[in-house]
Amino acid sequence: MSRIALIAGEGLLAPAIAAALDEPLVYALHNLNPQVPAQPFRLERLVPFLDELTDQGVTQVVFAGAIRRPRIEPDLFDQRTMAIVPRILMGMQSGDDAALRAVLDVFEEAGLSVLSVDQVLPDLVPGEGVLAGEPSARDKKDAERAAQIVQGMGPLDVGQGAVVAQGLCLAIEALPGTQAMLEFAALHSGLKPDPNGPKGVLYKAPKPGQDRRIDLPTIGPDTVRQAAAAGLGGIAWEAGSVILLEREAAIDAANAAGLFLWARP
Amino acid sequence: MSRIALIAGEGLLAPAIAAALDEPLVYALHNLNPQVPAQPFRLERLVPFLDELTDQGVTQVVFAGAIRRPRIEPDLFDQRTMAIVPRILMGMQSGDDAALRAVLDVFEEAGLSVLSVDQVLPDLVPGEGVLAGEPSARDKKDAERAAQIVQGMGPLDVGQGAVVAQGLCLAIEALPGTQAMLEFAALHSGLKPDPNGPKGVLYKAPKPGQDRRIDLPTIGPDTVRQAAAAGLGGIAWEAGSVILLEREAAIDAANAAGLFLWARP
Repeated sequence: MSRIALIAGEGLLAPAIAAALDEPLVYALHNLNPQVPAQPFRLERLVPFLDELTDQGVTQVVFAGAIRRPRIEPDLFDQRTMAIVPRILMGMQSGDDAALRAVLDVFEEAGLSVLSVDQVLPDLVPGEGVLAGEPSARDKKDAERAAQIVQGMGPLDVGQGAVVAQGLCLAIEALPGTQAMLEFAALHSGLKPDPNGPKGVLYKAPKPGQDRRIDLPTIGPDTVRQAAAAGLGGIAWEAGSVILLEREAAIDAANAAGLFLWARP
Repeated sequence: MSRIALIAGEGLLAPAIAAALDEPLVYALHNLNPQVPAQPFRLERLVPFLDELTDQGVTQVVFAGAIRRPRIEPDLFDQRTMAIVPRILMGMQSGDDAALRAVLDVFEEAGLSVLSVDQVLPDLVPGEGVLAGEPSARDKKDAERAAQIVQGMGPLDVGQGAVVAQGLCLAIEALPGTQAMLEFAALHSGLKPDPNGPKGVLYKAPKPGQDRRIDLPTIGPDTVRQAAAAGLGGIAWEAGSVILLEREAAIDAANAAGLFLWARP
């Protein structure tokens, strides 16, 4: 029998995927607190873990949710995992995306095919359209500038988001993530030149060339509330490439706060 | 007689330049609080201001210090300045650098040549070398990664700095500036994977292709203290391209805090 294993990260994506799957095996890195029951595994014993998946009849794997890098304990490596460490370390030094890609390669080489979340749950990734509110022409220009910034940063493998207001870039996402970036933007919202002008846009998109089976940008009702708290006018993202969690709740939160939600073509 | 006008911004650069010049005429945008006595001028009356400079016998201009964008009062424009507004507004919409370049062009077209601060005070811009402490091999790798990020962001015309620790990008500079970025990095310093590993590097460089007569990145003793407060191991920058204010005090502060200062080749 062919089974799917869910490698759960933190946040609400993993339980959403778990609910959509038929009796999945659920695992999580030992340093995470996933919101779904999961058996822990350690990166230092990745190769034995892959053997266990194969022994359980697993042929497909889906990664879902935010991952924090575990601290590595050199004493815990088994011999075979140790042999692949240089590849993963090299990836880590080149940035998040390269590190995750190296891990994916190891899964694929073990004969496990890695699915993207939208292969499991297509509704999670909205196509083009305005889901709440109505972005003005100037909001659209801010979204355009933010999209250029996120796309231009792509080869640097740093972040997947930016905040632009009235043509000015208030914040760029780095390792600390979207919430930290929005808190930063909130702190510096007084820099917008025109207090009565456009309030600014949070823009999210995957890095160009990013492996879409892992780490697609994710937004949800919390993102909407954080963007509202930062004084922004709305959220835009690359249609078909960003996970929207709890769509109805996110739309309700946006309508309540007067924010637009725009899956941009 | 040929005179030099100093267009003063905020911070310690303007008084340093004023002290190096022989009886300069000093002006500042009306919304700034420069640390040197200055006559205010308004962007809405830029063309009459240029006439005034010419009438005073000014042939050279030097810009020194941080500028904040003034709020524009549409009622205050004179006819001739109004005619050049579209150029400057278009620049503003493309980012800081384009806006400043548009303003410089207007000065040059009025027959005023714009000097860079290192043409006035070459000692302000250190050439290659380690000025304090000693960056380790891993610090140098972090500086290399940060330099790639800052250089890669160049065409986006966003910021001139980044913080990298253990290969990970903790923060990228945007409109709020270096101090805000360092406060952000301090807030998220717990994300460094190895608490005993390299503490991280603040890297500063001009954007590639940046007009070096304005807005060269500037660091000084305050930057050193902010980097130390953020838990970083040192500051690196592009040799020959970054202004170091109060060199002795900056080196003393770095030595006191155990930070390296490295003008990187």
